[in-house]
Amino acid sequence: MAKLEFFYDFVSPFTYLANAQIPGIVTRSGCQLVARPFFLGGVMKATGNAPPANVPAKGAYMFGDLGRWARRYGVTIQMPSVFPFNSLKAMRGAVVAGREDRERVFRNACFHAIWADGIDVSSSDGLGLIAERAGLDPAAFLAAIERQDVKDELTANTNEAVERGAFGAPTFFVDDSEMFWGNDRLDFVEEALRG
Amino acid sequence: MAKLEFFYDFVSPFTYLANAQIPGIVTRSGCQLVARPFFLGGVMKATGNAPPANVPAKGAYMFGDLGRWARRYGVTIQMPSVFPFNSLKAMRGAVVAGREDRERVFRNACFHAIWADGIDVSSSDGLGLIAERAGLDPAAFLAAIERQDVKDELTANTNEAVERGAFGAPTFFVDDSEMFWGNDRLDFVEEALRG
Repeated sequence: MAKLEFFYDFVSPFTYLANAQIPGIVTRSGCQLVARPFFLGGVMKATGNAPPANVPAKGAYMFGDLGRWARRYGVTIQMPSVFPFNSLKAMRGAVVAGREDRERVFRNACFHAIWADGIDVSSSDGLGLIAERAGLDPAAFLAAIERQDVKDELTANTNEAVERGAFGAPTFFVDDSEMFWGNDRLDFVEEALRG
Repeated sequence: MAKLEFFYDFVSPFTYLANAQIPGIVTRSGCQLVARPFFLGGVMKATGNAPPANVPAKGAYMFGDLGRWARRYGVTIQMPSVFPFNSLKAMRGAVVAGREDRERVFRNACFHAIWADGIDVSSSDGLGLIAERAGLDPAAFLAAIERQDVKDELTANTNEAVERGAFGAPTFFVDDSEMFWGNDRLDFVEEALRG
């Protein structure tokens, strides 16, 4: 069985679009999905990369490009009122959810809350609401995301991705070897999974 | 008849790959192709953009990514011994070729010479050889690329692309309106051409 690792950060709109394609890829390829929360801000800092919108013309183009992909996929997307927003607590939340065996449901709920519902996940109110939607106790969840071992796990994921060559999001690895970057490489990912 | 504008610079490997797909797109869509040489270095400077390889991890990934696209397309690609190289004279050469009604044949010859044959187009020897392959008189060609009106036409193309939103290469416009960036958006370009 082929293995697909998916490094994600909720702040990335192209990762939201890619995440919506994951179930189809898993079903068609029969791969094992290993979804890994990481912190894109840390990846950017470590690699010297910068968000596309730092180049104004690229940022302006990106919004139209996102809209075309969303229409192709039949996925709703709207830019959050604050962008980029601080995704650090939400990413720690994904680590916590993983320990409760609810990574998948939390990931999907959080991406949808941000990119379809416009919920602010940099606030405890917003994040608690998503935890609740994912079947987690909000108070326990909000306490857990402040724990050092949770912070350390997210940092370790981020460092591992960088060591393996990542510089942006989403980043995919097929069978621990070939790396793919971007929603627009999902067709290559699926080809690699088919071997 | 839909119109497809194609802004290109020989220095861009993804533009080389895209250029090889243009005949198929034109045949399938029945569009009118308007190929426009521009100077990517000028676009980068004007927009604050930078080549992907300025981020080392991105550069390393790009080589593998180019290889995957080349295999998909069935196109030969090898990196030139000097990269990035200075494409300014070659781009002026495309302007000169256009005035002789040989833009298409010069464009294809020059992309192939650089990316398949490893010819150095920053030298007069290399550029003269390509002019000859394109059915142009090398001596007259090499004199013409130094003319001020040729330089001005290339600058005007570059400025126009930037004013219309370009920040990289290849850049496409469909029917003077929708802009697409990158070899990896050719499927969207073709969708737009079909209306």
